[in-house]
Formats: sequence, structure tokens, C-alpha cells
Amino acid sequence: MSLWLGAGRVVAEAGVVVDGAVRVEGDRIVAIGARREIERQPSDRVLDAPQGTLTPGLVDAHTHAAWIGSRHDEYAARLAGADYEEIARMGGGIAASRRAVQAASADELAATLSARLGRMLRQGVTTVEVKSGYGLDEAGERKQLEAIAEVARDPAMPAVVPTYLALHAVPPERRGDRAAYVRDVEARWLPAVAAAGLARFVDAYVDRAAFTVDEARAVLSRARSLGLGVRLHVGQFADVGGAALAASLGAASADHLEHLSAADADALAAAEVSAGLLPVASFTLGQAPPPVEALRRAGARLVVASDANPGTAPTESLPLALSLAARAYGLTPRECLDGATTHAARSLGLSDRGALRVGARADLALWALSSEVALVQPWGAPPLVAVVHGGRVTAPG
Amino acid sequence: MSLWLGAGRVVAEAGVVVDGAVRVEGDRIVAIGARREIERQPSDRVLDAPQGTLTPGLVDAHTHAAWIGSRHDEYAARLAGADYEEIARMGGGIAASRRAVQAASADELAATLSARLGRMLRQGVTTVEVKSGYGLDEAGERKQLEAIAEVARDPAMPAVVPTYLALHAVPPERRGDRAAYVRDVEARWLPAVAAAGLARFVDAYVDRAAFTVDEARAVLSRARSLGLGVRLHVGQFADVGGAALAASLGAASADHLEHLSAADADALAAAEVSAGLLPVASFTLGQAPPPVEALRRAGARLVVASDANPGTAPTESLPLALSLAARAYGLTPRECLDGATTHAARSLGLSDRGALRVGARADLALWALSSEVALVQPWGAPPLVAVVHGGRVTAPG
Repeated sequence: MSLWLGAGRVVAEAGVVVDGAVRVEGDRIVAIGARREIERQPSDRVLDAPQGTLTPGLVDAHTHAAWIGSRHDEYAARLAGADYEEIARMGGGIAASRRAVQAASADELAATLSARLGRMLRQGVTTVEVKSGYGLDEAGERKQLEAIAEVARDPAMPAVVPTYLALHAVPPERRGDRAAYVRDVEARWLPAVAAAGLARFVDAYVDRAAFTVDEARAVLSRARSLGLGVRLHVGQFADVGGAALAASLGAASADHLEHLSAADADALAAAEVSAGLLPVASFTLGQAPPPVEALRRAGARLVVASDANPGTAPTESLPLALSLAARAYGLTPRECLDGATTHAARSLGLSDRGALRVGARADLALWALSSEVALVQPWGAPPLVAVVHGGRVTAPG
Repeated sequence: MSLWLGAGRVVAEAGVVVDGAVRVEGDRIVAIGARREIERQPSDRVLDAPQGTLTPGLVDAHTHAAWIGSRHDEYAARLAGADYEEIARMGGGIAASRRAVQAASADELAATLSARLGRMLRQGVTTVEVKSGYGLDEAGERKQLEAIAEVARDPAMPAVVPTYLALHAVPPERRGDRAAYVRDVEARWLPAVAAAGLARFVDAYVDRAAFTVDEARAVLSRARSLGLGVRLHVGQFADVGGAALAASLGAASADHLEHLSAADADALAAAEVSAGLLPVASFTLGQAPPPVEALRRAGARLVVASDANPGTAPTESLPLALSLAARAYGLTPRECLDGATTHAARSLGLSDRGALRVGARADLALWALSSEVALVQPWGAPPLVAVVHGGRVTAPG
């Protein structure tokens, strides 16, 4: 199928085209230019929004979207003053989502994820990273990763990048046995996940109440040797050396970063580790922002992601994250847009998307907005005319 | 048509029914009870979400949704440090939206509003108050109010409560002539709007850079004598006596309230004036919350609204306002839900909706959420199975 898209502004890699148009053949962009220069064929499907704005489809580079169940009780407790680590000690947090994943069948996990990714698509997200991490044992993580793989095969879904979140929390039954747990992950579960082709990245949560640098290094080094990329959660509650580890490993991304030294910001930038900002989580937790200015000065590539998860970022909205990044983190509209498109795609190792150029994958979002700057307003869900992923058109609402 | 709705939780006026159901005949709720008690007829349309939650349709009691155009340039300026009054002095703010309304035809205004209210409906909003206030002269306000009336006649739209925002800003050409402007509003434009049946409420913006108590009193007293309800914007930037005026007039609602004394909180509660909280605006402006605890102690009815407008609350999402009310204002989930249903309906003088009870208008939202508590999470757009307004079913996405 071929497709002709017109918009008041086409936010192309080479610059904004006012009164522009894009032609798509199959799953690729074949032409970008001024409206009158881009030929329209009689057979084309036409999506024209002369007052609208056409951007790359959004890329959500950090989600835990394969969750099931609800942790609204914890959210209410947090509103009433409980803190994250307190909730975790009471059996809430990751452990609560683990129980829900254990109780669910693979089909239920896949159906829930599919409904969720469908909603994300209808908010403009055409590529989404999805982590496991609520299984916490071999069978549970496999069940999550297989559900992710099943959903990823559906062409109606956004493109999915699967991440094995190998070190998320020590499950209750292994608390007395922590070193052996990490060895199991490194020596048995991770190689099996890699052999099954169930993950493109491996992730570890390095923080005060999570895993140590040494534990994460063992697992992530193994991941590298198996040919997988690595990502980290670091500095959400305390700086325990996670960012430095990310730099030394040449990780694709280091995310959260609320607690980050200027030296580590430099190290991340020098090692070309993307800096993943997750403002919904810090909004929910009432935290101060990461040191954005230090990251900027260091020249780090800023990525903004939803962190979609049932506890600290109970959302499905990357646009909401952009509005918080702008207002609460002080990112410029341009930084927000890059952080959810080109920089996000790069942090996922995807060079065929995240920017509108000839030859790129036909992932586009056509917004009922007169400028891409309006995308960072606190819409909740910005008004969208249509979203195109891999050349396929979905209209919301 | 008749309709049978089932949900894991039915949030009825009499209490939550676990595994409950509702029957609708025409535009009314005719039965509420346990799932097995509510008969299903062969002719019924069935909407069943055994894991979902059924609430009253949301009521957005404060919007400027009849805007046209975009003020993203101002939003970017605000992110870069400009303040509201500075933007207004540069010809932005209300004056910018006025130019856009002047340039638009009545049909364009109606089409834009219709698209917007359709999106609001698909976020669960079944009744929405819509203010004029971007005309600023007789013809402009009439054009806005007539567009609102036209959209309100469409049964596919949420129910619309029209408000004549009579005192929003003094237009540039009348700045030397302010007293005469207020007299024109009071003596000529307002009676004409009332005679044409174009508004149920009249609103005035009482603040440091807006109108004085005396100016607002003249206009709103006349509104009362013409049989219209009154609402006020008060205390957004400074307490200049607006809340006390609202109490003395027995207004339906006093909204914003960032600057409010404890004595005025008591006065509002004693006069049964609803306290309208607009957290998207204070988020956007980086303001501290209103004195919620003082309002609570006074026994005021708290309403939460989107304030949807192109400048200070560039959103269409009442659910986003609820998530900010919870996290930034400290409202409980129950206060948020009441503030967007029963209290909101009451502030609009609507006793037939805002709560699920037999005989009420069939306005319902069926959420893909396992509890109404989850509605206050920062979804951006909470997952919705279907929305019913006046018995009519709309499914999102």
C-alpha cells in the first residue's frame, strides 16, 4: 500500500517543512518535501491535516508494560505519605506485581500487554521497549518474555524491543541466598534467554535497596559476552555507583539519574551512554529532578520515557512524560521531542527510525496540533489525527 | 434502547457494589445491584467488564473549551521563564485567543469545539461546562456562545453547560474606557445573552490583573436578577476580595483559590459555594497549591476541573487534573472522584447526574481499572472500556 501524508508542519530530520508532505511505500518513507512537490497517486491513501503537525512516531525507550494487576492501593498509601522502600518492605512494590504475574497465565499476560500497547499506539508510540522483571525466577521471567514475544509478532502492535530485566529485586524466597540468586541469573537464566532470542537488551537495577555494582557487573558483563546490549536503572534513590558502571560497560542507556554526580554525567556522555529521564516516576514519588543542566553541559543524549509500570509510574502515556519533562525537569520542547524520537531510537540501537528521512521506516504521528512545540503541553493525551507504524495506519478514537 | 452494564466494582451512590451491574432504559438508570440480581433482556446491549470499574460519567465543571488556535509559543516562553502577566503584557494570553476567535467563523469555532468535546467524551467526560470569554466584545462573545449552543445540540456530544464569561479581560481598544466597558457588559450584552437563552451561568475573573470586586459585583448581580447562576475565577494570582464576593453573592462556584484566606474558606463553605480546584493551571504556572486543608476544615465542597484553555491549562483531560489534584494538591482518591462527579454536577446545578442511582441520567464511565482509586494515577488518559451519556454508548480507540 502507498500513502500520502500532508501537514502544516513536517518535522523532518533535515528541518521543518512548512506545508509539507511525505510519501510512504510499503513500510518505508520514499519522499519528503513541500506539499506540491510530493506526488499523489490515484491509488494512494491520503491523510491530510493542513493545520496539523507530522512528527516521527514516538519511541518509548523504558517501560515495564508487561505488568498485570493493579497497585492502586499502594498509590493511595503513597498519597497518604508512605514511601517506596516502606511499601516494598510491606510486600508491595515489585513483589506485588510478581505475585500477579505468577497468578496469571501466559495468555492473560499477552492479552493485557496487547491491550496496553494498543492504547500506547493510539497515543502516537510506534516503538516501545518492554522489560520483564516481574517474574524474578526462571519460569516467571520466561513467561513474561514469551508473552512479550507473542505480542511483538502482531503487526497491529507498535514495534517491540524486548529487554530481560535480569536484576530487578531479590525474590522473598532467595533473600537468604542472594549471591546464589545472582549466580543463577548470570550462569543459567541469562544464557537461556539469550539462546531463545527472547531479549535484545539486559537490564539491572542498581540502587540502595536493589542490587550492587558488583552484582550488576557480573550479570551485565555476561550479557555483553552473549551479544546482548545492556541498560541500567541507576541513581533513583541513591548514587551507589551505577552510573559509573554504566559508563564502564558502555551501556546503551542509564535511566532515572535523580542522584548523579557531575563527574558521572561527564562519564556517561563520554561513553555515549544515553541518559534516560523518567519524570513520571519522580512526579509520583515527589522527587527532585535529575541534574539536567549537568547532563546538558556534559553533552549527554537525553531520552525521555514513560517508565510505564504499575507502581511508581502507573501510566501508559509517553506524552505525559514529555509534559512533565518540560515543566518539572526544565527540558526544552526540542529536547523533549528528540528524547522521545531520535535519541530514544538510538538508545535502542535502532537506526532506521526516530527521524523522518527518505529510507526510514514509515513510523509517523500526525497530530492535531499546529506545532510540534505544542506536544509538550500537559494534554494527558495530545490530540492525534492518525499514527502510522511500518506503513500501517491507525486512527485513534 | 436498553443497556446492561456489568463491572467488578460499581461505584453507586449507596456504596460500591462488588460484581455489580446497572440497567439503563432510554436515557435513565433503572436498576443497580449485584450482577445476578440485575436482569438481562435478550434485547439488551451488554457492556461487561468483570475486572473493570463503573463510575458516574465525569463532569468537567470549568473549561474554556471553545478556544481556537494554539498558544504553544507562549507555553515555550513560560518554560523559558516568562510569567503570565508578562505574557499578557506582550499581547499574549487572553488577547491572543481573542484574535484567533475574531479571525474564525462560527462554523470553524463549532467544528473545533466539537472535535475537542468528542475527545473529552472518549476520556470519560459526559457533562462539560464551556465558557465564552475570548470574544471580549458583543459580537465575539455571541459568536462563541452560538458555537457552543450549536455543538450542545448534537446528541453525540457530552452534555454542555454554557457559561457567559462576561468579564475575562478588558480588550485593548477599551483600556482607556474601562468603566464604560463594564457598563456595556452589564447593561447591554448580558441582558441580550440572557434573553437569547445562550448561557446558564455568568462568570467573572476577579484578580490583580483582571477585574475588581466592584466591577464583578455589578455584572454578577445583574446576572442573578436575570435568573442566571454565577461563577467566579478568584485568587489565582492575588486575593483581591473575590472569594468574599462569591460568598456574598451565593455563587455556584469560586474557582482557582490559590490565594485564599482561612476566613474566606469558611465563608465559601457557609454560603455553599463550591470550591473549584484547577491543578493543571497551577502545574503549568509553577504555583503552590490552594489551601486545601483550610477548605476541608471549613467543610467546602471540593470540585476538580480541567480548566481546559489554550494558555494556562492547555489540556483536554479532566483525568490529568485528577492525577495532579491527588499528587500535587494532596486530595484523597475519594475527594478527586467526588470532585469530578457529584460535587461537580452540583456546582453546575444538575441534580440528575454525578452519582449512580436509580432514576439518574444514564451517564456512566466503564474503566479498564480494577478500582476507582486507580483513576487518580497519572495515566494521562486512563484506560476506558466505554462511556455512556444519556444512554448512548461510545467506545474509545
